[in-house]
Amino acid sequence: MRLKAVILAAGKGTRFKSEKPKVLHKILGKPMIFYVKSAVEWVNPEEIIFIVGHKKDEVIKEINCDSCKFVEQKHQLGTGHAVIQAIKYFKDFDGYILIINGDTPLIKGETLKEAINYLQALINYEGRNIKDKNYQNKEIAGLILTATVENPYGYGRIVKEKAGVVEKIVEEKDASFTEKQIKEVNSGIYIVYAPYLKEALEKLNNNNAQKEYYLTDIVKILKEEDKKFYTFNVGDPTQILGVNDRWQLSQAENILKNQFIYFWALNGTTFHNPETIYIEFDATFGKDIEIFQGCSIKGNTEIDDGTIIYENCVIKNCKIGKNVKIYPNTVIEDSIIEDNAEIGPFARIRNNTVIGKNVSIGNFVEIKNSTVGENTTAKHLTYLGDAEIGKNVNIGAGTITCNYDGVKKHKTVIKDNAFIGSDTMLVAPIIIGENAYTGSGSVITKDVPDNALAVERTPLKIIENYSKRKKNKDEQSC
Amino acid sequence: MRLKAVILAAGKGTRFKSEKPKVLHKILGKPMIFYVKSAVEWVNPEEIIFIVGHKKDEVIKEINCDSCKFVEQKHQLGTGHAVIQAIKYFKDFDGYILIINGDTPLIKGETLKEAINYLQALINYEGRNIKDKNYQNKEIAGLILTATVENPYGYGRIVKEKAGVVEKIVEEKDASFTEKQIKEVNSGIYIVYAPYLKEALEKLNNNNAQKEYYLTDIVKILKEEDKKFYTFNVGDPTQILGVNDRWQLSQAENILKNQFIYFWALNGTTFHNPETIYIEFDATFGKDIEIFQGCSIKGNTEIDDGTIIYENCVIKNCKIGKNVKIYPNTVIEDSIIEDNAEIGPFARIRNNTVIGKNVSIGNFVEIKNSTVGENTTAKHLTYLGDAEIGKNVNIGAGTITCNYDGVKKHKTVIKDNAFIGSDTMLVAPIIIGENAYTGSGSVITKDVPDNALAVERTPLKIIENYSKRKKNKDEQSC
Amino acid sequence: MRLKAVILAAGKGTRFKSEKPKVLHKILGKPMIFYVKSAVEWVNPEEIIFIVGHKKDEVIKEINCDSCKFVEQKHQLGTGHAVIQAIKYFKDFDGYILIINGDTPLIKGETLKEAINYLQALINYEGRNIKDKNYQNKEIAGLILTATVENPYGYGRIVKEKAGVVEKIVEEKDASFTEKQIKEVNSGIYIVYAPYLKEALEKLNNNNAQKEYYLTDIVKILKEEDKKFYTFNVGDPTQILGVNDRWQLSQAENILKNQFIYFWALNGTTFHNPETIYIEFDATFGKDIEIFQGCSIKGNTEIDDGTIIYENCVIKNCKIGKNVKIYPNTVIEDSIIEDNAEIGPFARIRNNTVIGKNVSIGNFVEIKNSTVGENTTAKHLTYLGDAEIGKNVNIGAGTITCNYDGVKKHKTVIKDNAFIGSDTMLVAPIIIGENAYTGSGSVITKDVPDNALAVERTPLKIIENYSKRKKNKDEQSC
Repeated sequence: MRLKAVILAAGKGTRFKSEKPKVLHKILGKPMIFYVKSAVEWVNPEEIIFIVGHKKDEVIKEINCDSCKFVEQKHQLGTGHAVIQAIKYFKDFDGYILIINGDTPLIKGETLKEAINYLQALINYEGRNIKDKNYQNKEIAGLILTATVENPYGYGRIVKEKAGVVEKIVEEKDASFTEKQIKEVNSGIYIVYAPYLKEALEKLNNNNAQKEYYLTDIVKILKEEDKKFYTFNVGDPTQILGVNDRWQLSQAENILKNQFIYFWALNGTTFHNPETIYIEFDATFGKDIEIFQGCSIKGNTEIDDGTIIYENCVIKNCKIGKNVKIYPNTVIEDSIIEDNAEIGPFARIRNNTVIGKNVSIGNFVEIKNSTVGENTTAKHLTYLGDAEIGKNVNIGAGTITCNYDGVKKHKTVIKDNAFIGSDTMLVAPIIIGENAYTGSGSVITKDVPDNALAVERTPLKIIENYSKRKKNKDEQSC
Repeated sequence: MRLKAVILAAGKGTRFKSEKPKVLHKILGKPMIFYVKSAVEWVNPEEIIFIVGHKKDEVIKEINCDSCKFVEQKHQLGTGHAVIQAIKYFKDFDGYILIINGDTPLIKGETLKEAINYLQALINYEGRNIKDKNYQNKEIAGLILTATVENPYGYGRIVKEKAGVVEKIVEEKDASFTEKQIKEVNSGIYIVYAPYLKEALEKLNNNNAQKEYYLTDIVKILKEEDKKFYTFNVGDPTQILGVNDRWQLSQAENILKNQFIYFWALNGTTFHNPETIYIEFDATFGKDIEIFQGCSIKGNTEIDDGTIIYENCVIKNCKIGKNVKIYPNTVIEDSIIEDNAEIGPFARIRNNTVIGKNVSIGNFVEIKNSTVGENTTAKHLTYLGDAEIGKNVNIGAGTITCNYDGVKKHKTVIKDNAFIGSDTMLVAPIIIGENAYTGSGSVITKDVPDNALAVERTPLKIIENYSKRKKNKDEQSC
Repeated sequence: MRLKAVILAAGKGTRFKSEKPKVLHKILGKPMIFYVKSAVEWVNPEEIIFIVGHKKDEVIKEINCDSCKFVEQKHQLGTGHAVIQAIKYFKDFDGYILIINGDTPLIKGETLKEAINYLQALINYEGRNIKDKNYQNKEIAGLILTATVENPYGYGRIVKEKAGVVEKIVEEKDASFTEKQIKEVNSGIYIVYAPYLKEALEKLNNNNAQKEYYLTDIVKILKEEDKKFYTFNVGDPTQILGVNDRWQLSQAENILKNQFIYFWALNGTTFHNPETIYIEFDATFGKDIEIFQGCSIKGNTEIDDGTIIYENCVIKNCKIGKNVKIYPNTVIEDSIIEDNAEIGPFARIRNNTVIGKNVSIGNFVEIKNSTVGENTTAKHLTYLGDAEIGKNVNIGAGTITCNYDGVKKHKTVIKDNAFIGSDTMLVAPIIIGENAYTGSGSVITKDVPDNALAVERTPLKIIENYSKRKKNKDEQSC
């Protein structure tokens, strides 16, 4: 079946009360429209046409699709009016048009595929072959995707003339008492034979209270021409959830998140208290992983086998190796953690840092734009920025790379087996040699050769019976 | 309609297993009784009378209401006995008494208002006008607020003599099989015509197994006088939830919290994983805000447009400006954060601190009782206490204001454009001048003039081939 | 009733996709098999026989039970085959065998006890006394524990010949349309008269599609001998939840966790947002405790009366005293916190530390393997390791115990009333005397006598008009 897709993405989303257009609001780190586009791409249409309008430049930029077509709907005069804008792309097209709203992010590509297969089967069953241009008995207008919901209030009800065939779609406000009992509702997703769609759109009018062009009117219009719409019930009603405000956004996000967690749980990751765990679209997990409560795994993060992530960690755009332990309240972004490393609690690793194998990074340690060699340890109250640190290095508590001179950042190099004493200030650019030592409390302003000790220290003065005198201001604490 | 209110707040709440009286247990940062009082105040009664008993002084103090009346119920002999204590306040009152339990914190003021309007409509409909003192046909005793619950077990069932009119209220233990099927239950909230209430209370007895005076007996007593109680079903059954133990406290708190989140979501805040987010009663939110999972927004906090709060932050009694970014695991209390500031991760701001526009506060930084001027940065491992910091200041990593001399706290002043080197100890009281510098690792014990550099440093000694000798104790790390 | 128990623990748990055997996957910090064993121990069987197979050594080691018997099932040929392995332990036993799967961790010991009592009552009612060896009318084969579930899909359905008596157990794939409607399902828990069990097991065959020996076939086999199985419906269907993958593991863990929270809530602890709180099996709570959202209380932790634990804390294997306050994002392991102490936010206490009464530990402070005396404070950016700290000590911000010399750890002793200036490096082994002082920014390399001041400092140099010249590299920050 030949297929093109029209995605409606022109809406403002007034109920979001936002500067941002509706379809750009994010679910698990991706704009809503991303999920709709992905589902549509799953069925491989010849062309995807986006109807854009409100803040169209922002929307087009975010969709970021060179092969897609974008058509502007200048005034928002209804869903029918939106699709009319795209007529030029299918006016001579002898195939089907998939029409879908950009605000139904939970629809699955597999579902669209099944719908298309079902439609194809119907066509074949009805004896019609759209490749045969001379075939006359074109009674099938297309398919309306539906779902059966517990509480149909507010949805368009699907009224049928016989099993599977739509009589009409009735909106809440127009529904009779009997029609209101119908629980099969319109998803807003249609697959329509293009020539009929074009014909119907040309007959649409806005003779109604809202003065809008309703796409659903095409059912009535085509029925008058003896063209039938069939229904395809998607089963899981969450798939057709329309997101019209931020509460629905949260709900949709949680449904999707729980689907992801369920998937990864069945594939070898234990999630402790999964309702409290947030994972985004691009995160991937290996086997025998444990994630404790309160963690957020964001962006393009890859976690390998045997790794344990303890409570309340936030990890974004990272590659985490095998058998890594990440202790509570750790934040890691844009970095690589290699096998068997231990990080945290209360560590922060960021900005293209690479933590080597068996490295141990402890509490209140920040590492930025640095590489840390195998077996190195930095366990307490440390800042390492723009540093290249070798293997088997011991970084004492309170170590700071003084990498900023008020104008630019400088690099610190610490070679293998060095021993950095506590509270060492490393004034960059600086090189600490192999096996070199620095004395506690020293400000190191010159390179330290291999095997050398660098120390800045004055003799310790002991003043006896000091506490009996009045103490001076030097001895303040906080 | 003239109205007074009686709130029952005498109970111990044995099932709380607590030293604290039942109605003082907190829901979203406020004692339960606060919510009941607020709902009652919504309908603007002439007088609010609290029945207090168990630890009454604590309860009265916490209610903190000068215009309210407090009556002691010395012995807890039932709900009827409780209301009897208040008779003196309405014995000559020709109006209505709203009676409500102090442990039903989810009741809405709007609901009480609707109930009163309904009662007024009933009175008018029945031809009665309470302003006409001579009017004889006073058949309406009052209103019982009810709700329909899925599982009525344990509640008093509302048995009706005809639609809307109560025959009797039957407690669980006295209910017949048929009565047990009734799902409309007593909320414990009544609006009763004062003269009838007084009359009925005077006839109450404690001839029952518990030897208690049951308020519900007034229905039977007044029915014998041909006075009718009508029902008003509140709809949402959670509104009548009685909180009798800490599990119910958690449930009530979560229901209320989710109501708040729902409200703010519809008003322009995106909550990621809202079940994991806790917001208290006084928190307010602007537009285009994002709150990530695990955050707690407590006390009187105001968050302005465009601000993003990342995972696991705790913010209490703060004013947060526009387009602020608060990174994960940050704790901010009793402070002001101005527009475009960036705070965290792992920052702690507290105690009347003001963070200026565009300020950047980083990880493992604590700021207390300080002001920080625009564009200033303090990004790592720093303690600033009792400090007044200017604009465009750079606070190096490891900076500490030594503000405490063992007796009292002293002030640190850092003027505009100063550059504080890493690991600087600022021994307060001290003033660092404009454009002044401090050298890394220095203890600054004297004021530094504008444009000056202050440094405490000894020459760096390099001892070659040190690592080949036995290292001494000076060079320890941790 | 004489009783032995057979626990099936041989499975690999393929769907866990794990190196670890199924029954060792953990729920609230304990392997699944622990909960099954505990429930079985509750009914005090004469002998517990574990059927082990996949990675049996690991399983036996983890079960860690000297009085238990372990039998290997070399090939996994079905549940019947598993029980056959244990025949030698009951071939001459005139009592009952409790058979239970090791993957049903939510079953309660109380439920098993009730089932046994019920079976005993049935036996007595039917006139049979198993102590009378000559009694002939042994018609009761035993009991099958069942539950009624909303959605029985996938479970073995209980088909009855009359009320309470099992006709057969039908698996999903063999069930007729009518049988599929049955909602009473098999728990996989049986109590069977040992001589009959032995007889039935000897007749089991594997003439089925899977070529497995099904334990459920004993119902049919014994029915042919006029022996009846009765049912005991456990009521709460979660008790029979079988854990076959990590998603079910999460579900089971959450159910159990919520049961624990419910229990402690009714016993005097307020849990704010309980769905976000994780508590393990061995945690115990006193009265008037508050736990805020996002906390994890793990291992063998005991929390005493009046204590408040704020958001996102992780506490493991600790004893927390009365009226302690633990502020947000604090991590405490293997330590004791005494009464009225205040810890955090962002504190980390670990490794056999004892924090004394009224101590105040603040943010970005790590304490390890240390004792801290009463009324001592350490409020900012500090590392204390292997230290013995007296009473009323003031530990300034930035203090570090330099306890590691690259080879071993050394001890720091700080005596009562000492005042440690900010940024003091204490190079261990070292003793700071009573009432002694250290100067800010000093590296203390020698013991400090009582009442003395130790200071390492050089005179402060002020270089005027520095900012107008080019600044040199010494004055770097970060």
